[in-house]
Amino acid sequence: MTNIHPPAIPADGRSLYTLRVYYEDTDAGGIVYHANYLRYAERARTEALRAMGIPHAAMVEQFGLMFVVRRIEVDYQRAARLDDSLTVATESLEVGGASLVLRQEVGGPRGTCAVLTVGLACVRTSDTRPGRIPPRWRAVLSAFRDARTGHAFRDARTGHEIRVARSGHEIRDARTGHEIDLPASDGGH
Amino acid sequence: MTNIHPPAIPADGRSLYTLRVYYEDTDAGGIVYHANYLRYAERARTEALRAMGIPHAAMVEQFGLMFVVRRIEVDYQRAARLDDSLTVATESLEVGGASLVLRQEVGGPRGTCAVLTVGLACVRTSDTRPGRIPPRWRAVLSAFRDARTGHAFRDARTGHEIRVARSGHEIRDARTGHEIDLPASDGGH
Amino acid sequence: MTNIHPPAIPADGRSLYTLRVYYEDTDAGGIVYHANYLRYAERARTEALRAMGIPHAAMVEQFGLMFVVRRIEVDYQRAARLDDSLTVATESLEVGGASLVLRQEVGGPRGTCAVLTVGLACVRTSDTRPGRIPPRWRAVLSAFRDARTGHAFRDARTGHEIRVARSGHEIRDARTGHEIDLPASDGGH
Amino acid sequence: MTNIHPPAIPADGRSLYTLRVYYEDTDAGGIVYHANYLRYAERARTEALRAMGIPHAAMVEQFGLMFVVRRIEVDYQRAARLDDSLTVATESLEVGGASLVLRQEVGGPRGTCAVLTVGLACVRTSDTRPGRIPPRWRAVLSAFRDARTGHAFRDARTGHEIRVARSGHEIRDARTGHEIDLPASDGGH
Repeated sequence: MTNIHPPAIPADGRSLYTLRVYYEDTDAGGIVYHANYLRYAERARTEALRAMGIPHAAMVEQFGLMFVVRRIEVDYQRAARLDDSLTVATESLEVGGASLVLRQEVGGPRGTCAVLTVGLACVRTSDTRPGRIPPRWRAVLSAFRDARTGHAFRDARTGHEIRVARSGHEIRDARTGHEIDLPASDGGH
Repeated sequence: MTNIHPPAIPADGRSLYTLRVYYEDTDAGGIVYHANYLRYAERARTEALRAMGIPHAAMVEQFGLMFVVRRIEVDYQRAARLDDSLTVATESLEVGGASLVLRQEVGGPRGTCAVLTVGLACVRTSDTRPGRIPPRWRAVLSAFRDARTGHAFRDARTGHEIRVARSGHEIRDARTGHEIDLPASDGGH
Repeated sequence: MTNIHPPAIPADGRSLYTLRVYYEDTDAGGIVYHANYLRYAERARTEALRAMGIPHAAMVEQFGLMFVVRRIEVDYQRAARLDDSLTVATESLEVGGASLVLRQEVGGPRGTCAVLTVGLACVRTSDTRPGRIPPRWRAVLSAFRDARTGHAFRDARTGHEIRVARSGHEIRDARTGHEIDLPASDGGH
Repeated sequence: MTNIHPPAIPADGRSLYTLRVYYEDTDAGGIVYHANYLRYAERARTEALRAMGIPHAAMVEQFGLMFVVRRIEVDYQRAARLDDSLTVATESLEVGGASLVLRQEVGGPRGTCAVLTVGLACVRTSDTRPGRIPPRWRAVLSAFRDARTGHAFRDARTGHEIRVARSGHEIRDARTGHEIDLPASDGGH
């Protein structure tokens, strides 16, 4: 266990994954087809987890667990084009007993293309019922989140400030600074 | 213009599109790959708009306009599998001057698989700047939305009630019935 | 067994499947991405087999068998575009003990887009070793092929004539009419 | 011109491209969906051409030319699975005035998965009519092919030997050593 904890976690809590846009990714509008950002985000999540010592093969074989996507929000901000080199920055907003919320930002040569908030549930492969994240992986994921603690994002659409806290992420009104009580991402998440 | 207005709009404001799940749609988990629901939703939107007399070829050729996806939220509720026959029900939540919010529910043989809220922007093909939806199409889209006015959905995740109003959709707390002031989907949407 | 044999087989040995081209299918060249013809062909094969009483669910559940693609040849003749309605015509060239060769032609509003020759192997799901096609399905597939017997195609690229025979397909030189002895599609096929 | 010629060409005429298999690539059979090998091959071709100083952006902008796929043959030999690391080896079999034939072999941890023969045509972007490959690029592509000259492949399916010659590729009977006169891949290719 000693070898997987500190070295595997990016110091700033951001795991980076780079990819190239090929013809397969584009559509007749000349830009990356909107659904493909979900594919990019999944590639980046997979590599982020692998780098942190949580390859899904091990999850399945050792624990009979896997992460499944429960909820995705995507804000599309700028088109990516053929041949663009894109970087996906993956960060953790929340770590629960059987869930995980990630923020993934896809950036290209002209700025941010898309920001995804991805809610994952840890489920048992046998019956897809919720399964608790094994303690040592939860420790890794929490350390990954903590590396972002106190860090704030500005939501481009609403102007709200999103801040990562140990207890989950807080959303504050940009003008008043008051916390906004959004529908909680609770256990069913 | 007389022929496109009332007949093209589904009486109950729900446009239905049916599809089959093939190998191409599934992944090694044995279920439909999560990004593919966005492809299904786009097929269904295209056919819904075509049926209402708004094929995108006409948008591009007659007006130099197209709809682009600005925001997508997906709640995944139940897996779809190989050979399943799925139906996408498309409804309108909001019609703005240059924007449109749709609710798309993908149902399968065992119940609802995914619910998508899709924010579309009408943009000029020349420079992708916002462009106003032409009046007769806006009339059609408004009639489509009005066919749903007063109808309420229950959000499976939060329990909140979402009601379609002429002025946009309202979200109310399930317990108190008070309206919830969510970050608005404003002009940038 | 009585109900699946003659009625399920198209009288002229051609099973037709129609589809629409959506944004997801196109690329930045404004045309259908070349790999997507393989997806179209697979949808069409699946429906052709289902219509003939050979749904793959039944193959897997009743016999522990499935068809896998062993070889594909695609001639691309004409681009398909957004919104095009395409028809895939599926015909059988050969039926072996554990294999099947299909010809699939994808046609669009401006003519033939692509012609695929698809070699399928029947394998056991347990270990993916070759498995014999069950007799009643082989009878159906042979009847489907026989409906084409004697029919000839002209290969657009080489000019050769391809004729469906009970013993497999023959390829003849367009000028001399002599049979061409191509590398056989033998057991490994 | 001095900087693009010798350094950009792999000494052994094989350009290598490595990729990882993600969920998006697999199907319900637990293996890589067969059409995805065409996507992998296209990524590898793009990078091979880019490394040789022929990025398609430059083709389009400087010469109004692009390569389109005219013909593809794929032999599927072994399944690739989730998380596999695959390498695509791209080699040139033929270089014509307005065409190119590549051999692309996709190898995985358990051996060769698929071998593709890909016929590309150089066409004008304006009207998709054949366009001659510009001389300096033809020189690069010929050098790439020549690095393979004399090299022989064994066709796994037929047992035939395929040898790269300056005048194109020759196919010889495995037993007799006699050249086989296959339908030529001529100008229309």
